[in-house]
Amino acid sequence: MARKQKSIRTDIGWSDASSITLFGKDFPNEILGHLNLGDMGFLELTGRFPNPNESRMFNAMVVTLVEHGITPSALVARMTYLGAPESLQGAVAAGLNGLGTVFVGSIEGAAKLLYETMPSKEPQQDLQALAVKVVDSYKSRGAIVPGIGHPFHKPIDPRTPRLKQIAVETGFDGPYLKLMEAVAAQASLVSGKPMPMNATGAIGALCCEMGFDWKICRGLGVMARAVGLVGHILEESRNPMAQEVWHRIEEVATEHMRPKQDDEK
Amino acid sequence: MARKQKSIRTDIGWSDASSITLFGKDFPNEILGHLNLGDMGFLELTGRFPNPNESRMFNAMVVTLVEHGITPSALVARMTYLGAPESLQGAVAAGLNGLGTVFVGSIEGAAKLLYETMPSKEPQQDLQALAVKVVDSYKSRGAIVPGIGHPFHKPIDPRTPRLKQIAVETGFDGPYLKLMEAVAAQASLVSGKPMPMNATGAIGALCCEMGFDWKICRGLGVMARAVGLVGHILEESRNPMAQEVWHRIEEVATEHMRPKQDDEK
Amino acid sequence: MARKQKSIRTDIGWSDASSITLFGKDFPNEILGHLNLGDMGFLELTGRFPNPNESRMFNAMVVTLVEHGITPSALVARMTYLGAPESLQGAVAAGLNGLGTVFVGSIEGAAKLLYETMPSKEPQQDLQALAVKVVDSYKSRGAIVPGIGHPFHKPIDPRTPRLKQIAVETGFDGPYLKLMEAVAAQASLVSGKPMPMNATGAIGALCCEMGFDWKICRGLGVMARAVGLVGHILEESRNPMAQEVWHRIEEVATEHMRPKQDDEK
Amino acid sequence: MARKQKSIRTDIGWSDASSITLFGKDFPNEILGHLNLGDMGFLELTGRFPNPNESRMFNAMVVTLVEHGITPSALVARMTYLGAPESLQGAVAAGLNGLGTVFVGSIEGAAKLLYETMPSKEPQQDLQALAVKVVDSYKSRGAIVPGIGHPFHKPIDPRTPRLKQIAVETGFDGPYLKLMEAVAAQASLVSGKPMPMNATGAIGALCCEMGFDWKICRGLGVMARAVGLVGHILEESRNPMAQEVWHRIEEVATEHMRPKQDDEK
Repeated sequence: MARKQKSIRTDIGWSDASSITLFGKDFPNEILGHLNLGDMGFLELTGRFPNPNESRMFNAMVVTLVEHGITPSALVARMTYLGAPESLQGAVAAGLNGLGTVFVGSIEGAAKLLYETMPSKEPQQDLQALAVKVVDSYKSRGAIVPGIGHPFHKPIDPRTPRLKQIAVETGFDGPYLKLMEAVAAQASLVSGKPMPMNATGAIGALCCEMGFDWKICRGLGVMARAVGLVGHILEESRNPMAQEVWHRIEEVATEHMRPKQDDEK
Repeated sequence: MARKQKSIRTDIGWSDASSITLFGKDFPNEILGHLNLGDMGFLELTGRFPNPNESRMFNAMVVTLVEHGITPSALVARMTYLGAPESLQGAVAAGLNGLGTVFVGSIEGAAKLLYETMPSKEPQQDLQALAVKVVDSYKSRGAIVPGIGHPFHKPIDPRTPRLKQIAVETGFDGPYLKLMEAVAAQASLVSGKPMPMNATGAIGALCCEMGFDWKICRGLGVMARAVGLVGHILEESRNPMAQEVWHRIEEVATEHMRPKQDDEK
Repeated sequence: MARKQKSIRTDIGWSDASSITLFGKDFPNEILGHLNLGDMGFLELTGRFPNPNESRMFNAMVVTLVEHGITPSALVARMTYLGAPESLQGAVAAGLNGLGTVFVGSIEGAAKLLYETMPSKEPQQDLQALAVKVVDSYKSRGAIVPGIGHPFHKPIDPRTPRLKQIAVETGFDGPYLKLMEAVAAQASLVSGKPMPMNATGAIGALCCEMGFDWKICRGLGVMARAVGLVGHILEESRNPMAQEVWHRIEEVATEHMRPKQDDEK
Repeated sequence: MARKQKSIRTDIGWSDASSITLFGKDFPNEILGHLNLGDMGFLELTGRFPNPNESRMFNAMVVTLVEHGITPSALVARMTYLGAPESLQGAVAAGLNGLGTVFVGSIEGAAKLLYETMPSKEPQQDLQALAVKVVDSYKSRGAIVPGIGHPFHKPIDPRTPRLKQIAVETGFDGPYLKLMEAVAAQASLVSGKPMPMNATGAIGALCCEMGFDWKICRGLGVMARAVGLVGHILEESRNPMAQEVWHRIEEVATEHMRPKQDDEK
């Protein structure tokens, strides 16, 4: 008995010998030169062009995630490039593989939390009561609220006030952003230490303001970091550190197994 | 004898509890909200902000490479997501791994060719003579000139005239772009069929106009396509094709090995 | 205030100019020529050499996962190789990225289920009662029991009886394997359709018999499939299908968007 | 005009509800329990079962490449796992991405060199004369002969004599292995320092003895290292180093940019 075929269909676009149509637009003439790279990302996620406020906000969100100096993803890209300089794409790919639940996953976690707590934007909701409920629920499960606090940036993640400022300027300081802040304030109160909204929490909330599926929020970090990793590979190609990192770590990590050297040597 | 240590150093940036400094700028306040994602890519590659012309040209270059519908990289990302929906980052990474010598490699190839032919921008060079030399050299080696002709987009890659137009508008229609065009014209003459500059040839030439290392040119395709692959994963999560692609291909590819079925069935 | 450093330490091995010590063994002389590749995998997971029964069982477990013809991971590796033939490693890496929760994840799921149900091997436990409890628990949550049933291999996964036979021959038909079978029988009873233990269920149970952490069980699939993907890339290099797959899928997927062609043409 | 379709075909295998056929064999009954993981790799590369000598030699070749302690690929896998513990497969994939021209690429380079120098095994060839020619050719181009010398293992790579011994015992000490040794001896003579055949040189030569395509030789390293990287992820999950590596390197690499701290603090 033959298998019943399902359809195979994309609505992103098609091309022929003389034209490329993407998201219903004439790609060369209506998109190239009109959209910047962040706008193109917005188009990929929504199927439409951003308005000026959306463009500014979305670009700020992704630019936030491009670069943070020497991160694990940057080290991974550099150490991969050391072994396979023929494959810049493999070095970037390797670096992106680490953008999981621990790092950019908190964007996804924050967005999911916010959507589950407030499935639709209804401005008259009691955000304070919702925040108490969220924090209680996480506390009772012994779970960590995503998007608040930061291991290094204390007490305040310096990216957060700036993202909020841009949100105010572009009209994105809506109920999801306010709820995320209320959750952070409540968590600080309950834990007795400052747990302010961090950059991923703000970005997760802004993803909700823009109506993105929570499942795709991690994608903002992935597309952004690809840009930053190319920068790290460029620096690695000019002023390498990967080989020295490898040797130093190998020496430290295996020291306890090595035979002690004679003192007189 | 102890190994002599080399230095480990980045100049991209650093951060402490309350600040993030990248490329010498206060990241939250001087970069966020000021640069779009393409500008941030320009900053990663040059260490400085683009001026308005650079911003427009560079964004057009990378936006060109974001999306081309159902490509091998898009299929790879979708089929990876089918097996590992927990790892959006892995699906993008898998897709990027295919951006090698065959696809975006021609950007790199074109840039390398142009730099080798014309190590520095000297407007008074005889571009036509250089083009003849390049085509002769490739022909004598039986090699393919990178950045010209296209398997689908015939006779003209529709992205190329648009990129040229933006180059004219932004002042990037310099000697490298003109040399690439001269090479394409000469190759068309010699081969007897139209071999116009394609989008990767134009982008490679524009990379030279901007002074990028040829080794990093592939990176423009990698950072751009990461944006597009997130869009494909979003569509796959809503309207999947990967499983059906798999089943159809598996059936076709193994048909010759399967026992023939009874006719009456 | 300086950060307090933590230790960086491996116990896997070290080397100097004239020796390589791995897992406490003289690698060249005690391992090379003595262990096969599966045995080396066992050594990586346990820190000790397998005995002959362990060697036979473990090799059978991983060999099961090497190859299953045209799978999504094989298609991904082939399509990545199409674009980046310079990076065989990237093609294998891309293929492995899809070995997540949907495919080899069921090994992990089965092992986790079994360990949670029976934290230690106590032969006198009432496996039937445990199985009823497991199936009830999954049913009440609307969750799918991992490691049973198979979309293609019906009613019986042909690898399962063979793995069981080898388990009997090598003494690995212990309580975890029996519990997995009891769970499968109970699930079949409750659902009213055959839901026998599949190959990943058997392998998950055998991982428990061998005492592997459930978190590493996915690793058996990953190490095994790397072997198979090299085979697919070899075939792709000799008799390619990736480009044709791409073109066919692109045509089908975009057909609804393309302008209808004139009938007379 | 419609595109002319090409065929899509695999000869690796197929399956139906009750059977899996791979390389013409009944997979469950003729392969599982009969082949070890290395033998399965041999089957993938040749389409046939190894004889006992082939099995021993091939397993030794791949086991050689599984593990070398803290390598860049191991660090990459560990640092990727730090960020994405949900995706063990992504951590292994990231690690494999670095197995390029610098590391396992020398297997490929050695095999290519040997095949180009001696396209077919003809025992009566003057290997010494061929070796002189090879070394002259590389020297005149300023190129490095692949497969000889080693940055750490001096003067002799301890894996090489053992691989040679196994080659003698299994009958694989043929003309390619002898040619590789002659090349190493000649290079040592010409350079005035010991440049003995290293492990990748020996494995490259043994790949030629087995008749493998040079293009697939890198694959031996890829399939082998996947096994080792699972071991590193297991150790990382129990005794992590990745976070500490990141912090230490970040501190060292950014020290020159940080403001000097007050002395009295």
